[in-house]
Amino acid sequence: MSLLDEVKFDDRGLVPAVVQDAENGQVLMLAYMNRETLKETIGGDRPVFWSRSRQSRWVKGETSGNTQRTVEILYDCDADALVIKVEQKGPACHESYRSCFFRRVNRDGTTDIVETKQQG
Amino acid sequence: MSLLDEVKFDDRGLVPAVVQDAENGQVLMLAYMNRETLKETIGGDRPVFWSRSRQSRWVKGETSGNTQRTVEILYDCDADALVIKVEQKGPACHESYRSCFFRRVNRDGTTDIVETKQQG
Repeated sequence: MSLLDEVKFDDRGLVPAVVQDAENGQVLMLAYMNRETLKETIGGDRPVFWSRSRQSRWVKGETSGNTQRTVEILYDCDADALVIKVEQKGPACHESYRSCFFRRVNRDGTTDIVETKQQG
Repeated sequence: MSLLDEVKFDDRGLVPAVVQDAENGQVLMLAYMNRETLKETIGGDRPVFWSRSRQSRWVKGETSGNTQRTVEILYDCDADALVIKVEQKGPACHESYRSCFFRRVNRDGTTDIVETKQQG
């Protein structure tokens, strides 16, 4: 059975994809794929996502130059989530942090920024 | 502003939480939280999730003994995804793999199991 037939897309036709730095394991971002962009991701060199806000296909770095190269694609026991290990060029976050997960929540509910912004 | 007011829950009232091994960075599972279980997670020692299938609160390891201790909680630029770094006791996956992401998708669409089952 093909993965495309096995994956359980949600009621929006999407599956979440955790994008992880292949080198050091840092979680860089969480994005979504539909059937078409997952197919394109499996067959290609870079992950292709579906933007929920713009309702369109998108590839990280097409405008910013901060591109990703797919190293490994994993999927989970329920076939309703993906991990994409990538080589990330520059910051993954549009706010110039390496990872979109640059804020920490403390036990008292306050938050801290735990990364520094990158150049380029 | 409290994180609970900042987080954008989806139309089901949920936010995805990437659970990551605090020790080696492995992504262990992807689960969901609602406002109540996120609040409980922030104030507590272990992550608390919302089961979409059972429509109920759940804590990993309550039946299996394969518990998680929260080490760090991160959230992303859009405030619509979380990373929970944990100390994971035993396998995180109910199929006895350390990670739920134990299968790899190859470029030709075939899949391989990339982990070995654990005891206990």
